[in-house]
Amino acid sequence: MELSLIYPVILCGGSGTRLWPRSRKALPKPFVPLVGEQTLFEATLRRTLDTAVFASPTVVTGAVHLAHVRAQLAPICQGTTIVEPAAKSTAPAIALAAHCMPRPDALMLVCPSDHYIADVAAFHAAVKSAAELAEQGHMVAFGIAATAPETGFGYIRKGAPLEGGFEVERFVEKPDLETAISFLADGNYSWNGGIFAFRADAFLAELAAHRPAMAEAVRASVEAGDTRDGEFYPAAEPFASIEGDSIDYAVMENTPRAAMVAVSMGWSDIGNWHALRDGREGDASGNRIRGRAELIDCTGVLVETDGPRVSAIGLKDVAIVVDGDEVLVTTMDGAQKVGKLTGAANQ
Amino acid sequence: MELSLIYPVILCGGSGTRLWPRSRKALPKPFVPLVGEQTLFEATLRRTLDTAVFASPTVVTGAVHLAHVRAQLAPICQGTTIVEPAAKSTAPAIALAAHCMPRPDALMLVCPSDHYIADVAAFHAAVKSAAELAEQGHMVAFGIAATAPETGFGYIRKGAPLEGGFEVERFVEKPDLETAISFLADGNYSWNGGIFAFRADAFLAELAAHRPAMAEAVRASVEAGDTRDGEFYPAAEPFASIEGDSIDYAVMENTPRAAMVAVSMGWSDIGNWHALRDGREGDASGNRIRGRAELIDCTGVLVETDGPRVSAIGLKDVAIVVDGDEVLVTTMDGAQKVGKLTGAANQ
Repeated sequence: MELSLIYPVILCGGSGTRLWPRSRKALPKPFVPLVGEQTLFEATLRRTLDTAVFASPTVVTGAVHLAHVRAQLAPICQGTTIVEPAAKSTAPAIALAAHCMPRPDALMLVCPSDHYIADVAAFHAAVKSAAELAEQGHMVAFGIAATAPETGFGYIRKGAPLEGGFEVERFVEKPDLETAISFLADGNYSWNGGIFAFRADAFLAELAAHRPAMAEAVRASVEAGDTRDGEFYPAAEPFASIEGDSIDYAVMENTPRAAMVAVSMGWSDIGNWHALRDGREGDASGNRIRGRAELIDCTGVLVETDGPRVSAIGLKDVAIVVDGDEVLVTTMDGAQKVGKLTGAANQ
Repeated sequence: MELSLIYPVILCGGSGTRLWPRSRKALPKPFVPLVGEQTLFEATLRRTLDTAVFASPTVVTGAVHLAHVRAQLAPICQGTTIVEPAAKSTAPAIALAAHCMPRPDALMLVCPSDHYIADVAAFHAAVKSAAELAEQGHMVAFGIAATAPETGFGYIRKGAPLEGGFEVERFVEKPDLETAISFLADGNYSWNGGIFAFRADAFLAELAAHRPAMAEAVRASVEAGDTRDGEFYPAAEPFASIEGDSIDYAVMENTPRAAMVAVSMGWSDIGNWHALRDGREGDASGNRIRGRAELIDCTGVLVETDGPRVSAIGLKDVAIVVDGDEVLVTTMDGAQKVGKLTGAANQ
């Protein structure tokens, strides 16, 4: 069976604070070259450029990020940009994209724009399996092989095998550490990577079944929307009434058609400086340096500076980030608290 | 017996690198407000302002530091400034001052300009004892009560008691750690704080006995020197021939008239960021902050920033120094290696 074309849907919303001060409201995480030369958004686009497999992408973003999307999308490919009237989490954003698909049964591949994937071939293989399951009407989640007892991710417990994947036994909210350790030992739990595949009509049907008010508001917003300069602006008024919700809560945890593909692809959500350090290649001492720096007796140290020279002595597993008039120094363990800093909160 | 007036001699030479980047060649350690509001040089001057006890100070410095001396001396007191033609360590510097004393038997109190003393009353008490011993012809060193097995200081082993002090059994070079630990346990060893008291004629006689060439070159340099704008410039030519040497090597280790006073006065040479942290008062978590900073889960952290905000998470016993385009992050243990940094070496 020849697969239908796959329609990438790139979600460019949100604004994390845990990579502050490098990622700021004015230049959020997807648009900063955090790993390698390209930005995470650019890398996300480049993973779905093969026109034998993928249609041109649909980017869902907010007005605040639009300039970045324009600047980074155009040099790579043509795409459709949908400008969300408001940030309402992922379910409404995906629904907007589903309505804009050129055909009702279009195979959508939903990708966050701010995740890192080291093994792109493994990603493509998983996409193929996911697309096959999605064509059969499944709502497919990507289950990322868990490599650590992360408490910051949702988990998926796999069920009975399917061709190319598994049924989903259940989705699990972010666990506590003890639970996460047991998940890792159990072997049947994957991280929920926030990547999904399904037919547009299947998604909209599930949304209508489980979040009828949201589904209707999105539909009305699309109907009253207009296109300017090649970008689509859904109408603000109906959209504003939506109670924001994630695809996980709104659809995946409720649908009887959930499935998953299991994939190990060097995935990272680059959720904080610890994850970012691990996403970058280190030198012999495990240090990662960007910008002018000199390290003595340091191991596992990340340095990222946009100008000033950083000199470090005797540190282990510490991130040093210099950005404009902000200097952040955190242990890897402390990296998840960066969002609590006044600087990150009031950026 | 009424004591003669004491003539403070303040040595403003040298340029350490271990407080880089705050202390730089262009603005060295004595002239930076490192502890409290005033600079170490200012604090040194202020400790000898009591005109009932002290004459006005003689400052020995080099041309590179002269602007700082002028700026910081004048607002505090009148003093005599001697501009060394070259840096030749402490023995020639002190000899220059000895020649400039208004009377041959003037009681000199030699003080480094870059040390911190918390307990000024204890210092004054020790000065009194030292002056009494010096009047009797002793060459008096200040033995600082050792509070840690420091390997960066010379030590003095005390001998038989004298009125107000002790004979010196021997001076000891910077020991290794094992030796330093044994010194601390022994109880008869003090740190050599680099503070000395003696009569000018006694010092010059000892120098002539043990370093005759140096003594003669200094004498000739003073004789051929001239005064400009109220500052004394010894002649460069004879001075240039001097083989530089410290008072410890040139005089104290050789003189049969060595004595010491024992003093516990919260002394620190502020020799590196570790010492500087310990010299500053900490908050409840032992953190010391100068400039804009926010700390989460930090203990014993020193922050010093001249502008950019420093945010720190999860650190213990780390110094973070931001100065111009330099950012230094070091553990307290690593602080003694700051001088090895390219930035510190090539400032």
